[in-house]
Amino acid sequence: MRTINFETGYIMHPDGSCLASYGDTKVICTAIISNDRPPFLRDTEQGWLTAEYSMLPGSTGGGRKRREIGKRDGRSMEIQRLIGRALRAAVDLDKLGPRSVSVDCDVLQADGGTRTVSISGAWVALFEALTKLAKSEGKESAWYYLNGQAAAVSVGYVKGELFCDLDYEKDSQADVDMNIVMLNDRLIEVQGTGEKDIFDRKQLNAMLDSAEAAVRQIYSEQKKALGLA
Amino acid sequence: MRTINFETGYIMHPDGSCLASYGDTKVICTAIISNDRPPFLRDTEQGWLTAEYSMLPGSTGGGRKRREIGKRDGRSMEIQRLIGRALRAAVDLDKLGPRSVSVDCDVLQADGGTRTVSISGAWVALFEALTKLAKSEGKESAWYYLNGQAAAVSVGYVKGELFCDLDYEKDSQADVDMNIVMLNDRLIEVQGTGEKDIFDRKQLNAMLDSAEAAVRQIYSEQKKALGLA
Amino acid sequence: MRTINFETGYIMHPDGSCLASYGDTKVICTAIISNDRPPFLRDTEQGWLTAEYSMLPGSTGGGRKRREIGKRDGRSMEIQRLIGRALRAAVDLDKLGPRSVSVDCDVLQADGGTRTVSISGAWVALFEALTKLAKSEGKESAWYYLNGQAAAVSVGYVKGELFCDLDYEKDSQADVDMNIVMLNDRLIEVQGTGEKDIFDRKQLNAMLDSAEAAVRQIYSEQKKALGLA
Amino acid sequence: MRTINFETGYIMHPDGSCLASYGDTKVICTAIISNDRPPFLRDTEQGWLTAEYSMLPGSTGGGRKRREIGKRDGRSMEIQRLIGRALRAAVDLDKLGPRSVSVDCDVLQADGGTRTVSISGAWVALFEALTKLAKSEGKESAWYYLNGQAAAVSVGYVKGELFCDLDYEKDSQADVDMNIVMLNDRLIEVQGTGEKDIFDRKQLNAMLDSAEAAVRQIYSEQKKALGLA
Amino acid sequence: MRTINFETGYIMHPDGSCLASYGDTKVICTAIISNDRPPFLRDTEQGWLTAEYSMLPGSTGGGRKRREIGKRDGRSMEIQRLIGRALRAAVDLDKLGPRSVSVDCDVLQADGGTRTVSISGAWVALFEALTKLAKSEGKESAWYYLNGQAAAVSVGYVKGELFCDLDYEKDSQADVDMNIVMLNDRLIEVQGTGEKDIFDRKQLNAMLDSAEAAVRQIYSEQKKALGLA
Amino acid sequence: MRTINFETGYIMHPDGSCLASYGDTKVICTAIISNDRPPFLRDTEQGWLTAEYSMLPGSTGGGRKRREIGKRDGRSMEIQRLIGRALRAAVDLDKLGPRSVSVDCDVLQADGGTRTVSISGAWVALFEALTKLAKSEGKESAWYYLNGQAAAVSVGYVKGELFCDLDYEKDSQADVDMNIVMLNDRLIEVQGTGEKDIFDRKQLNAMLDSAEAAVRQIYSEQKKALGLA
Repeated sequence: MRTINFETGYIMHPDGSCLASYGDTKVICTAIISNDRPPFLRDTEQGWLTAEYSMLPGSTGGGRKRREIGKRDGRSMEIQRLIGRALRAAVDLDKLGPRSVSVDCDVLQADGGTRTVSISGAWVALFEALTKLAKSEGKESAWYYLNGQAAAVSVGYVKGELFCDLDYEKDSQADVDMNIVMLNDRLIEVQGTGEKDIFDRKQLNAMLDSAEAAVRQIYSEQKKALGLA
Repeated sequence: MRTINFETGYIMHPDGSCLASYGDTKVICTAIISNDRPPFLRDTEQGWLTAEYSMLPGSTGGGRKRREIGKRDGRSMEIQRLIGRALRAAVDLDKLGPRSVSVDCDVLQADGGTRTVSISGAWVALFEALTKLAKSEGKESAWYYLNGQAAAVSVGYVKGELFCDLDYEKDSQADVDMNIVMLNDRLIEVQGTGEKDIFDRKQLNAMLDSAEAAVRQIYSEQKKALGLA
Repeated sequence: MRTINFETGYIMHPDGSCLASYGDTKVICTAIISNDRPPFLRDTEQGWLTAEYSMLPGSTGGGRKRREIGKRDGRSMEIQRLIGRALRAAVDLDKLGPRSVSVDCDVLQADGGTRTVSISGAWVALFEALTKLAKSEGKESAWYYLNGQAAAVSVGYVKGELFCDLDYEKDSQADVDMNIVMLNDRLIEVQGTGEKDIFDRKQLNAMLDSAEAAVRQIYSEQKKALGLA
Repeated sequence: MRTINFETGYIMHPDGSCLASYGDTKVICTAIISNDRPPFLRDTEQGWLTAEYSMLPGSTGGGRKRREIGKRDGRSMEIQRLIGRALRAAVDLDKLGPRSVSVDCDVLQADGGTRTVSISGAWVALFEALTKLAKSEGKESAWYYLNGQAAAVSVGYVKGELFCDLDYEKDSQADVDMNIVMLNDRLIEVQGTGEKDIFDRKQLNAMLDSAEAAVRQIYSEQKKALGLA
Repeated sequence: MRTINFETGYIMHPDGSCLASYGDTKVICTAIISNDRPPFLRDTEQGWLTAEYSMLPGSTGGGRKRREIGKRDGRSMEIQRLIGRALRAAVDLDKLGPRSVSVDCDVLQADGGTRTVSISGAWVALFEALTKLAKSEGKESAWYYLNGQAAAVSVGYVKGELFCDLDYEKDSQADVDMNIVMLNDRLIEVQGTGEKDIFDRKQLNAMLDSAEAAVRQIYSEQKKALGLA
Repeated sequence: MRTINFETGYIMHPDGSCLASYGDTKVICTAIISNDRPPFLRDTEQGWLTAEYSMLPGSTGGGRKRREIGKRDGRSMEIQRLIGRALRAAVDLDKLGPRSVSVDCDVLQADGGTRTVSISGAWVALFEALTKLAKSEGKESAWYYLNGQAAAVSVGYVKGELFCDLDYEKDSQADVDMNIVMLNDRLIEVQGTGEKDIFDRKQLNAMLDSAEAAVRQIYSEQKKALGLA
């Protein structure tokens, strides 16, 4: 695995913010709490969380990435829907009450695994924002609003060998690529794709074993950054 | 499982077409072969396949679905990317040669599982289109261009009980929902989401066992529709 | 004239639906009644009806039709405005009361005359939806809300000879092309275009005579499908 | 009928331009000839003509008209398609050769009949542009490129009485409204709509008689403005 | 300087309108007063003013200007923001009360300086609209709502020589180009750009001197057109 | 003046990059050189430079800033046009040759003056990118491609007192606000706006004096960051 780092309080205006990195992949994650909720929750007391994901034009190799103006990129939309689902599962929406959390993940520098760095970093920014909310609402801590700790990692087979947290070079050579999102010690989301090759159940299990071990390490870095360890 | 049906040759203009249904979920799948390829393949002899997914305005319960004009729906984009990846894995893009296959999946009537019906039906339409190509190119059959047979099914836990091929009612009550896409007897794509509840490895394995059995039944219906059995 | 057919109750979710065909041209028509009305009727008790028209990507010959995402096709907008005007004339908007009917016409297979098939089929779907409304409102029948029966047909001169209900081949060779929409035995809309040649009053009258006879046959098929004959 | 006027050479840059008015309805019409042609004519020597129609924000009563940015207005698209069809019928596209004419009709002030003023004014601007082309190509006059003279007028029934060239007040009260476009003494386009009431063949004929007489007057004003009388 | 002219009451529907010209540059300016205000003023009694700027397709030399549909032109947005800022500074927004003024500047013919003609003409249209408001509100005159008289002019160095009110030919050769907007005898906005060459403080002062003299002449033409002299 | 800082080499993929800050305002500036040029330079050997400006959703106080998807923000477009003009004036486009520089300025944290930080930081990123180009082209240094050193600062009157480099609090209270861009010791762009109050020539001169002194300090920080001092 690559070096993992979370720097909290990275930007001053949002309720929570974090510069998250796995190796050379760096993502700015922010969390902003507001009273606006989507219309379909109008008659409830439930909270909500949405996520947006984007890459800065200079974040990738191989030339500038065009800004998504006029037309959203399918890949970005798929990733931001994944981030949103994962973090919504981490929040107790009833306890959150009639509020929305807006999570933004902006990739500063991409070197593989941007969606997994985004999820892990966004959980840190979310925790920071909920800590602020807990204080103003007289709750003990951010844990009051949470179902648990969430983090994500990628895992895959490159030329028959199993790797965890693939950088861009490995990712582009991978036969099978899987993203795992966990909440405490259970699974929130499992996404495996055999872009170049198909995979069997045995390989699936080996990838899951490896990912679970990696997520435990990420949990520990998240806690350290938040002063929880 | 619900009744599964594939009706080939459903529309006259496309190279291949199929009306696919699992229970009350009905999807029109078409496959059109052309010589246009995306710019990034310009210097190669490789083929390509793209997919689009959409729902007719009258296809859903709970009121009319707005057409995606001006702004694409994130859910539709995520689904069409999944369909595209799955069918690309089923095709031998080198043997396809400098051609593109455009797959379109338009949901006529939705009652849960539209993405899995789309994939299974699109494979049938694709087979029909490749049969036509094989004839004009002097190849023995559509299998020449294919890596295997592809089909998909959903599986999930509803109130603790495991179900395969969930209809809308079950899907909306599911704690955990998983979509499995297979190519012959291996996996192309595994997508599991714990929207309401998280899941563990034991549940994941039970879902995969159930899905594999269901896909075998779908394979048999696809072959029957294509006169291959 | 080509074989005309209307299949009611084609899709389960909408209030009314119909698969309409003139020869090989097939259109799925649906009608959905809701309480949303356009803002300009806010201070009235009047109802409204809107229509949308679209072609499935695989519906045409000569290659795939691009979906109208981002930019609407001028031809589609012109056609859906015609469908909307025609069906609004068929409805007594005061008796409809503060409700809207959304009509959708999606072309499954195109072989000339898609706008006329859409209007005739949409009237059948509308009748089905209004029958449902009549029941829940304690009215005798759908006729309570209607000004009459509406249907449409095309007519034109091909190489000097008059034809009614032109298929694609005839339509593309026509010197003069006219679409007539009738309500009972009077005219709602007359649209004649001399794309290749101009026409005189004598030809106009011959086209109108032929179209009126054809519409009477279509009326009879609509009634048969609705069990009104 | 209202006072009809055409002022040629109204703007200095386009090849042809005209300020056209029927009463208080005023439209700026321009025609610009270029060598750009639509892709579908690539392999031919044929010319083309396109038209665009728009209303200035201050042109209408009842408040400002929003500019059509981001989303085109269905009514504007329908009108500009009509203008384009009508003027294409007036031009001999083979003699025009591999060129395009871009016609623009911008409504300065609207008081009913903007589409008919646009067509008649655009023909004047077109004639001016083709006169310039004829000079540079050594042809005798603009007539070389034309199939004839085109003009348009509206006609309708208001409270049972027949009126020609309806202003806004009459138009909004009309039971039946018809737009007629003529080329010399034959019809290019007939569009009749019974928005409030339906109409019969006798009324249709009376409207056509009235319109034909009006168009002859318009022809005479067009010629006067172009110095052809 | 070129001949300057303002023709008031140019269009009948808006509250104020003016055809403004500096030489061959002609702009239609309209001002419409409504009760709609932007959301951020909801809790205040303050008024607002917005401006939009656009060029007609036939207004420029060097070929047709595409309409800004789908995508706004950066230059137009920059210009309309300048017009809006300048005129907002001219209005006493508190005295205007809970109303909005919509200013539209549509370039009929462009020959350099369209943004300065727009500002000077828009002030005339605004004065006309406020005169109408003053009458209905029982105020003495439009001056009640105004901070003063506003006008604009361009000034620049062409081959080392200073020119005021540059036409297109001079503007395209200018080394330094500056737009000055004044309110009475002070400055509202100063925008100087050294597109081809940079400039020093001495040149800046010479340009400001020249512009101030020109604006005084424009003030006098504005007053004459409004019958204020 | 606030503390000024430029951190070069901030992101690994672009040819040049810089994290620029004036006090709490922080902007990520990148410069990428490519062989794509705009169509209007096709027949020349001249280079080009474009700039884009955007704010991250969490960069501002007072709630989240919506991403500019679907519709560009007028303010952003105005700013990026200013950045582009300023940096184009700094580059010798003939010496740059048939290449384009894409400059991107993404605001990480906003506290007043984002456009001036963007310009000064973009010049540093540009210098870094041109240094790389100079090496590969065998030129002595980046100065070969440059007309000089560029930097920008804001200056304004707050309650009658003159301030340089205004933070958000001062900026929102300013009566007059001016942005000055310099190239070596001359002016590229001067933009003064009296949003709340108008200004006279004496104030204009005082603002220019103050800005010139500030720009000299910024020059010195830019050189230090680039190791040029």
